[in-house]
Amino acid sequence: MSAPQQKLEKMESVLEKYIPEDELKEVKRVLYGLNRGKPVAKLPITKEAQDLATKYNFEIVASKIEAEPEQLRPPRIVRMGIIQNSIAAPTTDPVLDQYLAIESKIEKMIDAAGAMGVNVLCLQETWHMPFAFCTRERYPWVEFAESASNGRSVQFIQRMARKYNMVIVSPILERDDVHGSTIHNTAVVVGNNGNIIGKSRKNHIPRTGDFNESTYYMESELGHPVFHTVFGKIGINICYGRHHNLNWLAYGLNGAEIVFNPSATVGELSEPMWGVEARNASMTNNYYVGSINRVGTEHFPNEFTSGNGKPAHKDFGHFYGSSYFSSPDNCRTESSSRVLDGLNIAEVDLNLCQQVKDKWNFQMTGRYSMYADFLTQYVKPDYKPQIVVDPAMK
Amino acid sequence: MSAPQQKLEKMESVLEKYIPEDELKEVKRVLYGLNRGKPVAKLPITKEAQDLATKYNFEIVASKIEAEPEQLRPPRIVRMGIIQNSIAAPTTDPVLDQYLAIESKIEKMIDAAGAMGVNVLCLQETWHMPFAFCTRERYPWVEFAESASNGRSVQFIQRMARKYNMVIVSPILERDDVHGSTIHNTAVVVGNNGNIIGKSRKNHIPRTGDFNESTYYMESELGHPVFHTVFGKIGINICYGRHHNLNWLAYGLNGAEIVFNPSATVGELSEPMWGVEARNASMTNNYYVGSINRVGTEHFPNEFTSGNGKPAHKDFGHFYGSSYFSSPDNCRTESSSRVLDGLNIAEVDLNLCQQVKDKWNFQMTGRYSMYADFLTQYVKPDYKPQIVVDPAMK
Repeated sequence: MSAPQQKLEKMESVLEKYIPEDELKEVKRVLYGLNRGKPVAKLPITKEAQDLATKYNFEIVASKIEAEPEQLRPPRIVRMGIIQNSIAAPTTDPVLDQYLAIESKIEKMIDAAGAMGVNVLCLQETWHMPFAFCTRERYPWVEFAESASNGRSVQFIQRMARKYNMVIVSPILERDDVHGSTIHNTAVVVGNNGNIIGKSRKNHIPRTGDFNESTYYMESELGHPVFHTVFGKIGINICYGRHHNLNWLAYGLNGAEIVFNPSATVGELSEPMWGVEARNASMTNNYYVGSINRVGTEHFPNEFTSGNGKPAHKDFGHFYGSSYFSSPDNCRTESSSRVLDGLNIAEVDLNLCQQVKDKWNFQMTGRYSMYADFLTQYVKPDYKPQIVVDPAMK
Repeated sequence: MSAPQQKLEKMESVLEKYIPEDELKEVKRVLYGLNRGKPVAKLPITKEAQDLATKYNFEIVASKIEAEPEQLRPPRIVRMGIIQNSIAAPTTDPVLDQYLAIESKIEKMIDAAGAMGVNVLCLQETWHMPFAFCTRERYPWVEFAESASNGRSVQFIQRMARKYNMVIVSPILERDDVHGSTIHNTAVVVGNNGNIIGKSRKNHIPRTGDFNESTYYMESELGHPVFHTVFGKIGINICYGRHHNLNWLAYGLNGAEIVFNPSATVGELSEPMWGVEARNASMTNNYYVGSINRVGTEHFPNEFTSGNGKPAHKDFGHFYGSSYFSSPDNCRTESSSRVLDGLNIAEVDLNLCQQVKDKWNFQMTGRYSMYADFLTQYVKPDYKPQIVVDPAMK
């Protein structure tokens, strides 16, 4: 817990600790936005949920985001939850033991979500395993992969979904036995009846540094599905897809009201981007975003290099957690911790999405035909960029 | 100066005033990012420039952003400047007097930019006039409009460009006599020899609240031109276009290394978005962004309404300044003041753009063909969104 990136437990705590109330209000207005003219409200945490958190050493934060009343539509209040977790057993333990240790931890956290009345929950990217792709080793890591229709973790999530009448998005490493036993980075969407509604896959695969995932799985060919559940329309933009504005846009144009971004990312690479990209997506596409990052440092048995000239090592840095929600009206919620497991909850009114679209008109003014033409031209091998050279240079 | 939105003079000042050094370092790392592993450095301000700022009551802030040395390309060091200003005479004064008062103020600020060795400068949106579009009145406001090839302000900018060997992007209200005397929201790009390289127009026009600009001018049909100058490749995304990720993308794909976003926006509407959207554009498209917002409150002679059910009034709130630069490596510079006129300067190495592209691979992994197809389908009247309905709901 002494690495520089772990000095900061949580941005909000530092701001609240030092800045006087009057100025803090202004700082938070600019950094976190307002909901209906006021700071985002806290949602009370039930005793049952807090007791679980205390007993099992995770943090719960909970917020409430409101919409305006409408005349013809009732409010559509939904409680969303996102869970960030560290792994629960050494990466040298047998695969099944590692999985079961994480499952046990997640079960308590879903119990707490249930005790808070969460309707829609999303877990972190490949939550059921260490993020071992940095190693470039196949075994034992691919043994964590499982069927998206009846894998071990899928069945566990189905049980939890039924138990709490909860839609659960479960991002896993998938093995697709129907298609050549290939591996995929997949989010399984389980309905509140425990039924499997469908799956979505990662659209953009990183090919940089320790993110060697392109050696494990390919880009999704499943498009940008939006899952219409009883608790709203949900899209899943997995991890590196958050750097691609077109990816966010496609979920929005397909009607998403909530987009989850289950991720695994470390401080040195991405932390200054973490509070920016998802919020930008939320405010320009006018849907809620739940951003989830795993937490902690994962040590692997064998050393590996990172393609950056530095010596081989056995971990790739601290996953800084900091999961949070962005709102379509450009406010955001408190972060989860940078160092602790966490359940972050937001009670929202889904009507806010359309209300903000009606107010800002980004979709009406989007000129999508122009950009369809632009991209169609751009991808041609003989594309000529629209460059105007200063005649004085010629 | 007593309105709530003017309480905060500058975000950075509050953070620096209250947060102890050790924790401040972490807060700034997360909120402002690092450049080559260190906080963005300050650039010394010359005595001549500071004297002008003191005498004429504007603020100068200056930063330095570095790239890695390369073997085959020398560094391409460029000093960029952006200017935010309030109007300089009451909006009831004759149009020419109002213009000349602003010109006189801007002249001193460009002198300071010259004294700082700025190579590429951009002014704010329609810098030569009050942002009077909220009134929906035609006269006298359209009398500020002028030719993009030989208007009064254009000639002034040409003189200043020659004087300081500076590329200057000058966003003005344009009257196009060749095309039906129509009005446009235009940025004129003046080369360092004082020659006019070309012009770019606003691609997305707001149609909301006090932003009644769609009654004055239409969306640009000039595409997404990038101007290749001796000091780098420059695009201009005017104001409301910053909410449109495709607009930012098109400038990037056309090769921009610097994109200016001359704007006019007020606190209640957009301030929490101001630090997010431009940075997102910069970090996902890997170019520098100079974000410029005017400053101060502008009072108009006749009352107007804002389409929000509130009583008529004569101003539309405080333009909060806060101009700043975003870097392709995801750090950003200090803001200009929320209340004072300001010149914000960043010395950068343009090589950083390609270096970050090479590191992150966002362009390589962009899957633009897929999105060209997606948008081409989306704009069809019979488009069927990719929605998967929970079978349990049917």
